[in-house]
Amino acid sequence: MNLVSVQECRSAALVVLEHAGVPAAAAALQADLLIEAELRAVPSHGLLRLERIIHRIGNGVASATATGAHEWRGDGFLAVDGQDGLGPVVAVSALKAIAARAKRTGIAVAAISRSNHIGMLAYYAEAIALGGQVGIVLSTSEALVHPYGGRQALLGTNPIAIGVPNGERPFVIDLATSLVSMGEIHDRAHRGQALPEGWALDEHGDATTDANAAKNGAIAPFGQAKGYALGLAFELLVTALTGAALGRDVMGTLDADRKANKGDVLIVIDPLSGQGAAISAYLDAIRSAEPAAGFDQVLIPGERGRALKEQRLKDGLPLAESVWTRLRQMRDDVKGLQT
Amino acid sequence: MNLVSVQECRSAALVVLEHAGVPAAAAALQADLLIEAELRAVPSHGLLRLERIIHRIGNGVASATATGAHEWRGDGFLAVDGQDGLGPVVAVSALKAIAARAKRTGIAVAAISRSNHIGMLAYYAEAIALGGQVGIVLSTSEALVHPYGGRQALLGTNPIAIGVPNGERPFVIDLATSLVSMGEIHDRAHRGQALPEGWALDEHGDATTDANAAKNGAIAPFGQAKGYALGLAFELLVTALTGAALGRDVMGTLDADRKANKGDVLIVIDPLSGQGAAISAYLDAIRSAEPAAGFDQVLIPGERGRALKEQRLKDGLPLAESVWTRLRQMRDDVKGLQT
Repeated sequence: MNLVSVQECRSAALVVLEHAGVPAAAAALQADLLIEAELRAVPSHGLLRLERIIHRIGNGVASATATGAHEWRGDGFLAVDGQDGLGPVVAVSALKAIAARAKRTGIAVAAISRSNHIGMLAYYAEAIALGGQVGIVLSTSEALVHPYGGRQALLGTNPIAIGVPNGERPFVIDLATSLVSMGEIHDRAHRGQALPEGWALDEHGDATTDANAAKNGAIAPFGQAKGYALGLAFELLVTALTGAALGRDVMGTLDADRKANKGDVLIVIDPLSGQGAAISAYLDAIRSAEPAAGFDQVLIPGERGRALKEQRLKDGLPLAESVWTRLRQMRDDVKGLQT
Repeated sequence: MNLVSVQECRSAALVVLEHAGVPAAAAALQADLLIEAELRAVPSHGLLRLERIIHRIGNGVASATATGAHEWRGDGFLAVDGQDGLGPVVAVSALKAIAARAKRTGIAVAAISRSNHIGMLAYYAEAIALGGQVGIVLSTSEALVHPYGGRQALLGTNPIAIGVPNGERPFVIDLATSLVSMGEIHDRAHRGQALPEGWALDEHGDATTDANAAKNGAIAPFGQAKGYALGLAFELLVTALTGAALGRDVMGTLDADRKANKGDVLIVIDPLSGQGAAISAYLDAIRSAEPAAGFDQVLIPGERGRALKEQRLKDGLPLAESVWTRLRQMRDDVKGLQT
């Protein structure tokens, strides 16, 4: 692990993205999303993904310049054709439009198709909540999760993020409906560690604790039947609104050469004013409640990630050696070309 | 267990509700919601609740006639003051308004405060999906659930229902963010059965397998930290939109003498047309996937409840003896008064 300054990572990512033809403002957004994941200790959504983004642009399955075509299908429903654009660029453009619209209508939704991976959903939920609005963000993904009682990966990890205003420190959750991430499985495989029982199946559908075997298998849904139900509901809801592909037909966020056909849904709701004090007091009561044996304190979801972010903004990012080496190589290759 | 015809239960409930001053159409809705829960084998939301509803009307904390005051706070945001009305009456009135509005705007939300218990959320999600729209329904409740890592009940069971159109058999999930319901705890206590480890804490915050001890304690969130995060997010989201009470301040759905101050949120979204075939095919693929050891088949959430409903509509409701006895008594008391 190296502690690398956020500024150095960011400027390296910008050099690489801009060399691939991404306009400066769009490159800044894409870099911000990758760095946000590193700041919040979700490296599977971090700078590891930069090289694949560059390859996707080079392979013609991601557009360096598209920002998404907007069509209002009703006063509160924005249909967005992502035009193969970079996920954060398309999503932020859509978000700005629906956040402004919701101020007038009370609620608005963006249904995004044909956009690339939008990164950590918490980024969008937090932005919405910092703007004084309530946000719900959903996204689908390649099938990596087996149904409860099934043997094969048929569902995406289908995360949800929710943001609720609470002053400068809004309440934000961001969680996949899988028990763990495929990134965690790969990390265990890399370290030669076994998986706890119940995490995963191998490619034949049999339970395994071998992380390498799980890479071609399936991850369990979180919370058994209930988590499976939620993950499936999110997949169907996103498809009903966006026309995205379903299940094993989803592609384009884990490979370098196929167009992305998953969907993203952002909902922004204008809340009642004046609930802030009650929400803050309630969160304080939970935070100060007596913890169970084995716990230091009762945590509010999202606060550990935010604390890490604040620390890492000061101290730097603990990048994996391989990620930092590759990022420098990509940057230096560009600079070499430019001199 | 008695098998009682749905028609007989329904007409008994109508007699009792109308005698309490509930207009016929409203009584039919309230009875439908109670019977819907019996049909889907969720007796905690069933006819057991009728006597409390009558007491609440008698005690002046529930209105027999209110349907809710509607105020559009924007083209897509319906704020509903429930006026202490019966939950299903207020919720269905709000739902009709936002379902019609969403046909024009693409999305609409109803934020309901000061309404009584609205019953099984699946009822509303299914109605929305049968109308060809996507529905998300949230409701809060008395604090019965402890935070992950906590010792005290600080959260409601905070259920969510989602409905997605799929012809005559829409996809509908309805689940609490608690691991089990308090009704299940009471049922185990009644039968003298122990609880599995991890389900509940006693009133001192210590883990217990004694169902009687758990009645005054707290239920675990489902899915550990993730289920806790979702339950807390739903509680905050509902309060941000409705102004409902939070945590241990919530009352009025489990007692007979305090006004209800929880909140309900219904969101209706008009989907893209033409996703139906893909959704049906995907659900078929999951349904026919090879099951894991110990499972007969991979289930689609909500389908077991629907199959039970279809069977019970023919065969009758397997009411608990005490519930059926009390329902007949209440009906006969009214009839005695009326002759």
